[in-house]
Amino acid sequence: MTNTTRITGGFWARTQELVMDVVLPFQGALLEDQVPGAAKSHAIENFRIAAGEAEGAFHGMVFQDSDVAKWLEAAAYALAVRPDAALEEKADSLIALLGRAQREDGYIDTYFIVKEPERKWQNLRECHELYCAGHLIEAAVAYYEATGKDAFLSIMQKTANLICDRFGPEPGKKRGIPGHEEIELALLRLYRLTGERRCLETARYFIDARGAEPDYFAEEAAACDWRHWGPYNGDRRYAQNHAPVREQKAAAGHAVRALYLYTAMADLVGLIDDEALFSSCVNLWQNITQRQMYLTGGIGASAAGEAFSADYDLPNDTAYAETCAACALVFFARRLIDASITPAAEYADVIEKEFYNGALAGMQLDGKKFFYVNPLESVPGVSGVLEGYKHALPQRPAWFGCACCPPNLARLVLSLGRYLYSQSGSTIYCHLFAESESRFKIDGSTITLKMTTGYPWKGDVDFAFEGNAHCTLALRIPGWCGSAAITLNGEALEAERRCGYALIERDWQSGDTLRLALDMRVTLVEANPHVREDAGRLAVMRGPLVYCLEEADNGPELWNVSLGNLTPADFTERFEPDFLGGVVTLSSPGKRRPPWQGDTLYRPAAPGADAGTEACTLRWIPYYAWSNRGLGGMCVWVRR
Amino acid sequence: MTNTTRITGGFWARTQELVMDVVLPFQGALLEDQVPGAAKSHAIENFRIAAGEAEGAFHGMVFQDSDVAKWLEAAAYALAVRPDAALEEKADSLIALLGRAQREDGYIDTYFIVKEPERKWQNLRECHELYCAGHLIEAAVAYYEATGKDAFLSIMQKTANLICDRFGPEPGKKRGIPGHEEIELALLRLYRLTGERRCLETARYFIDARGAEPDYFAEEAAACDWRHWGPYNGDRRYAQNHAPVREQKAAAGHAVRALYLYTAMADLVGLIDDEALFSSCVNLWQNITQRQMYLTGGIGASAAGEAFSADYDLPNDTAYAETCAACALVFFARRLIDASITPAAEYADVIEKEFYNGALAGMQLDGKKFFYVNPLESVPGVSGVLEGYKHALPQRPAWFGCACCPPNLARLVLSLGRYLYSQSGSTIYCHLFAESESRFKIDGSTITLKMTTGYPWKGDVDFAFEGNAHCTLALRIPGWCGSAAITLNGEALEAERRCGYALIERDWQSGDTLRLALDMRVTLVEANPHVREDAGRLAVMRGPLVYCLEEADNGPELWNVSLGNLTPADFTERFEPDFLGGVVTLSSPGKRRPPWQGDTLYRPAAPGADAGTEACTLRWIPYYAWSNRGLGGMCVWVRR
Repeated sequence: MTNTTRITGGFWARTQELVMDVVLPFQGALLEDQVPGAAKSHAIENFRIAAGEAEGAFHGMVFQDSDVAKWLEAAAYALAVRPDAALEEKADSLIALLGRAQREDGYIDTYFIVKEPERKWQNLRECHELYCAGHLIEAAVAYYEATGKDAFLSIMQKTANLICDRFGPEPGKKRGIPGHEEIELALLRLYRLTGERRCLETARYFIDARGAEPDYFAEEAAACDWRHWGPYNGDRRYAQNHAPVREQKAAAGHAVRALYLYTAMADLVGLIDDEALFSSCVNLWQNITQRQMYLTGGIGASAAGEAFSADYDLPNDTAYAETCAACALVFFARRLIDASITPAAEYADVIEKEFYNGALAGMQLDGKKFFYVNPLESVPGVSGVLEGYKHALPQRPAWFGCACCPPNLARLVLSLGRYLYSQSGSTIYCHLFAESESRFKIDGSTITLKMTTGYPWKGDVDFAFEGNAHCTLALRIPGWCGSAAITLNGEALEAERRCGYALIERDWQSGDTLRLALDMRVTLVEANPHVREDAGRLAVMRGPLVYCLEEADNGPELWNVSLGNLTPADFTERFEPDFLGGVVTLSSPGKRRPPWQGDTLYRPAAPGADAGTEACTLRWIPYYAWSNRGLGGMCVWVRR
Repeated sequence: MTNTTRITGGFWARTQELVMDVVLPFQGALLEDQVPGAAKSHAIENFRIAAGEAEGAFHGMVFQDSDVAKWLEAAAYALAVRPDAALEEKADSLIALLGRAQREDGYIDTYFIVKEPERKWQNLRECHELYCAGHLIEAAVAYYEATGKDAFLSIMQKTANLICDRFGPEPGKKRGIPGHEEIELALLRLYRLTGERRCLETARYFIDARGAEPDYFAEEAAACDWRHWGPYNGDRRYAQNHAPVREQKAAAGHAVRALYLYTAMADLVGLIDDEALFSSCVNLWQNITQRQMYLTGGIGASAAGEAFSADYDLPNDTAYAETCAACALVFFARRLIDASITPAAEYADVIEKEFYNGALAGMQLDGKKFFYVNPLESVPGVSGVLEGYKHALPQRPAWFGCACCPPNLARLVLSLGRYLYSQSGSTIYCHLFAESESRFKIDGSTITLKMTTGYPWKGDVDFAFEGNAHCTLALRIPGWCGSAAITLNGEALEAERRCGYALIERDWQSGDTLRLALDMRVTLVEANPHVREDAGRLAVMRGPLVYCLEEADNGPELWNVSLGNLTPADFTERFEPDFLGGVVTLSSPGKRRPPWQGDTLYRPAAPGADAGTEACTLRWIPYYAWSNRGLGGMCVWVRR
């Protein structure tokens, strides 16, 4: 890390505190089976059994270890945000346990250590050994970066060595690929920290071997006389194994798998010179963001396989849009920024979109419950109930048998500081806006940048400089923003724009202040006409936030609401400090079709476009805050 | 039958001819495995093997016999429509084969005779023995009524006796119920022909035992050590076994199963005095037609279980709306007419709706291909392709492994004559309009009624009387019709209305002529606001016909079409004799959202309700004729 950023206040400081004060302790207790009434995780107990310090059987998913890994990674980011001796002690003791559970050769997966030791590495398609190792490696890197302690890192370097010894194209090595990508990006992350070339080479091998002929998973399934989940159905797209990665042009298959792969690909591009790989990353990015992404940033429209669907197939009520996939798209976007000589603001636009919408909606405002699935329309009696909608729960459940999303969100929120800026030579890119303090090294000197802002509720972002350096500050002008003004030391400034960033190059001096003023006026958004499910509908955004209507404010059967000839000027805004944790709500006129008298199902239509509708006032809330007030309908895309 | 009706010309004579000339021979050849390239039916071969006249194994579904039964029933109706020596000979020979395949005791199911003789009657939930017997009984009754020949009837009376001996509440009898209803209505049909009281009693037993505690299917599954399809999942609604029939208020479960049950219930009401059963029938009818029926008459919205969904859950693109269920709703409606002291026109409204829309759409215009599933919106690349849409094929396939719908439709179309009229004492109800000739007995004298009409394209229906009788002619004034005029012998007549029928009581004499003139103006229809999927949409009807837009006429991506402030007066009509077999097409102005320049997925909306749309002309075709011109989109409900 050449720069460090600490979130110091405002919206995200509060959210990070929530995660540190509520989410992490709660998840830590769950991993220890200390939450009364909650389903047993057994995740830490599995390590105790593997270490020979407890009796019993393995319990949980074959990837149960990854819950521990993601919690440790989140804990690492928490320790970077604020010191916490108790948390650090808990993490250290858990890390020590991991060390004791690890086998001599570096192997560390508790499922196979405890339950099926004779079956290690045989069934990569189903058994997540490389996936769990990858998450533990990520956690170890983060923990080292946060604390400077290398115990965890040493443990995972041993595992990484084992993997590098075992897998690769060389004679005598296993030519396998993981069924769920993750090890690739983890080995690259380890390489970036340690410079250990084998990590880079093995990650590269895993990336390059995907999609090769013949189908590795078919060969593996044929060679293996046991199944963990079930027979291989031959669907190569599910794990992005349908084509070599440099030939993949459209995002396909399980969305989290896909994005972990794409993240590794983009990271690899930043490490080696590979035009074809970069161009494939850009193609995949464009396919996702121009054809397969919800307005909220949700990706993976299809519940079947938690997967990408077809281009422009973006149903609102049956959307899968997994929280983990939203997190993973952030990882991909961040690597694309680093892989680009001149980053385009669209990457950070999407990162911001996820932080404020697609990812954040995964968490209840009190930090205690979580969505896996993030639909853009929810219908009581249908969502979570009817066939085809069972995945689209209308309320966040307490905890999951498969607990991937909550800790993924925790580690994302706590690592926000890593996404605010990037530095390329003497250019400092500012991607996201949040109250923060950051340090940068420019040509040997250190400068400090303080950001002060009421974002996302207010559009003014103030930067204060300490230190002196000649450098370029590149401020992202968000894609959603119609008009932005920059003031340097009180004077208006016309900055050059490049790829969505406003560039201000000068000899910066202590005491310099810069204000970026973003127009936060409401935007009425329409979707590309190819998107069937949004035809004739509008969505409301204000700043980076997507808004929605909830039944609690607007009555039942929200599909009977329409907007008519609404314009942004018809909206009034109000910051409500005591509502939904403090949000700007919007109010607008609307129209509503009243219920019918009688029981007819069909009747001749009342004439005229407004036929039979009644005027009403609509109250809009940020999408991320939906479903915090009991069961009720919600919708983002409202009829015109 | 107290009256007989023959279709003599017009729309339905042509359709019946198509079924007789194309569908029946084709289906007959399929049953004989004589269609090159088609999947083997083996249905008749199964009977040959059962009769010991061929070697080989049973092949096909456990209910394969019912294909033969429905074909024979359709053949019977065909013989009632017009003499056909070859068809009759083929049917007679098939009936003789059935007789030879039948066991001594009357048992006739080829699956169990050939494949698992030791497992008869053990697994009623899965194995359709009573269902197949029921269809064969229906066919035998129809064949006797059409030809006067009793060979088939004798065969099936023997089977009926076996069933009556075996099942019932009496000690020593099996207290089972069928997993797929059909035997109930068949036994009642046999009772109506033969007066054999046991048939009535056994049908009544099957009806009354449904929904009883404990769950018969659970007990049966526990007692039986083999499965045909798979374990019992305990879903009692699927086969309407969740509550005693008199307590069922909402249609539930597999739609065809449900409607066959309700049909039997309504028929039973006409035979015994049972207020509770009648009221249950009416409740179920109202639930279906006021909450669970598509505008086309399609029922069973959910592909999962081919089942009823929840009230007002009527998705257009994923509709199941099985052709068989449309046929079955006609059976139910017809029995309700007979069970009512004063029938309401709403029953015949639905019968007409099915004949012209929900059922008829099941058949390609050339009679060679068939839909099982009848969606109200079809989207290329989505329908029949994506997960959740795989059932909603965009084009009629050639034939099915499960071939229930085509012969069901064939028997419905060929029995249309049975639905035109009913008689209650000296009141003749005219329910449907079609060129036809009918005979009625009134107080010992016979009168003949000839109907001449260009229906459904023209609204004039002319009745000509022969014979003399004092009676009431009750003409249905369709629910879709805004204005109807009656002229008797050239003079306008104000007829009393009752329950949707115009009543004309007089001494009718030979030469009397009556004209019913129905206003065929286009109706723009809206759905009840509780129906989410139709919110903000209109559908177009003309007469009994639901219309739709097809891509072939209106370009791709029909969801970008909207109607604006359209009124019925904006439509022009044209009969096109050489288009789609001769149809009235409609033309109206419309609006279309053009494609965007560029690849953006979302953008600020153009202001105003019409923002960015372009004027266009829409061409509407009858829904039943959709998907006869290659692959392309279709929709019934169009945005306002």
